[in-house]
Amino acid sequence: METIRVAFQGEPGAYSELAALNYFGSKIKTIPCRLFESVFEEVGRETAAYGILPFENSLAGSIHRNYDLILRYEQYIVGEYFLRVQHCLLGITGSKLADICQVFSHPQALAQCEHHLSRLGIEKIAAADTAGSARDVRDWGDKRKAAIASKRAAQVYNLDILVENFEDDTSNITRFLVLSQFPLKVDDPEDGDYKTSIVFSLMNQPGTLFKALSVFALREIDLTKIESRPIPGKPWEYLFYIDFVGHQTAKISTKALEHLAELATYLRVLGSYPRHRV
Amino acid sequence: METIRVAFQGEPGAYSELAALNYFGSKIKTIPCRLFESVFEEVGRETAAYGILPFENSLAGSIHRNYDLILRYEQYIVGEYFLRVQHCLLGITGSKLADICQVFSHPQALAQCEHHLSRLGIEKIAAADTAGSARDVRDWGDKRKAAIASKRAAQVYNLDILVENFEDDTSNITRFLVLSQFPLKVDDPEDGDYKTSIVFSLMNQPGTLFKALSVFALREIDLTKIESRPIPGKPWEYLFYIDFVGHQTAKISTKALEHLAELATYLRVLGSYPRHRV
Repeated sequence: METIRVAFQGEPGAYSELAALNYFGSKIKTIPCRLFESVFEEVGRETAAYGILPFENSLAGSIHRNYDLILRYEQYIVGEYFLRVQHCLLGITGSKLADICQVFSHPQALAQCEHHLSRLGIEKIAAADTAGSARDVRDWGDKRKAAIASKRAAQVYNLDILVENFEDDTSNITRFLVLSQFPLKVDDPEDGDYKTSIVFSLMNQPGTLFKALSVFALREIDLTKIESRPIPGKPWEYLFYIDFVGHQTAKISTKALEHLAELATYLRVLGSYPRHRV
Repeated sequence: METIRVAFQGEPGAYSELAALNYFGSKIKTIPCRLFESVFEEVGRETAAYGILPFENSLAGSIHRNYDLILRYEQYIVGEYFLRVQHCLLGITGSKLADICQVFSHPQALAQCEHHLSRLGIEKIAAADTAGSARDVRDWGDKRKAAIASKRAAQVYNLDILVENFEDDTSNITRFLVLSQFPLKVDDPEDGDYKTSIVFSLMNQPGTLFKALSVFALREIDLTKIESRPIPGKPWEYLFYIDFVGHQTAKISTKALEHLAELATYLRVLGSYPRHRV
């Protein structure tokens, strides 16, 4: 069997790589990409079968830019995965927590461990990403320097885990979506636990959103996400992101989407995929 | 007249300080705070009359964490301000674009200028924040080093603006909210252009969101934001954030909120404030 190639943004050991391995299993080949765009390009050229990208975080919200990129590259969502972000404090082999004077990581990860770091009196130094900091710490070989990164980064760079679950807030969950050049094919869209993601815009009139939601409510279709997003440069217009339960080709979904198309000035189905129940 | 003190997160010259000065005018005293929490603490202790914090970005989405903090600190939204994020490339006095070999900034700002930086062949180095990078560049006094930061940072640290509007995507807008210990008092809530922000949760049943939105739609109250947010640790429960047009004490808003309270398992009004029209 051919090895499945999956592109992610970041260095080896990044949280996105961990999400890919958890979702697809350890036998895949993960392809690190420097930019979000490069992930879409790998998928577009079919040099990777799939891309996996963060779309939402429980503390930081939706990553609108990746929604823009799905539209620009005309790709499809074919899977979802919720990853609990568990930061580790990583040092070189043989280092002890008491040795650590400086810690390197992405500013967001440093902020998420702020209370622990302050208590320990460790100096924080910003870096471009979590996994790259782990690689640097390995390269420097200095017992006084540590990184905040994933458990996976400890394996990749052969570092010791000095503290696990180092984050201040344990409710840090990132939702990853799996992208493909092709929509997911299913045998029976009526059978199975699917979600569908759509994006649409409406005429700028009071009550249009209410009408749009009625197409789901009247059919008792459950929504799992709704978000309005102002369209930059068009102050009174919005894009709406909705995820609903069901496959887009199931009979009831088809009817709801036809109904929505009557009301929407723009409508795009981003994909249907098995629901990840956490 | 006593000088108004306004707390913001970041170093002097940060985009948040720029937002504060644009909103309140140049005569205020801005108070830099290291953490988002410290801004709430300054406001809570009344060592600052107001705090100003980013809540939404057109590319990066809502900052959920700041919504959590408003609730935790029991403060009120009393204003909003939309700031177009315009990055500048800043060098020391007398430096030229051709001199620059390395650029320092927050990873997000570096990513937002990715295409320009690649074209110019400038090495990117991550730092904790934009304004702090500008301060470092001034301190180093090296013509080959530049920072990506606001125009305001150029003034604060006496740096030359080598390139204005250095960002790849000009539709980068951040919505700041102004916080206070006290709700905004108005003479006549029926007269004026106000918005009200609320947060609520609903029973986990299909169609409950539709019913909740009906309290606004039936009264032709316009919504300017809607967002669902999964409650971490409670997989099937959501918080909803809604902004609607009107002051919370206007008659029609009071009725809508009373109606919503019948349906919601939790409801909190975060504040009413003059709408910023961009």
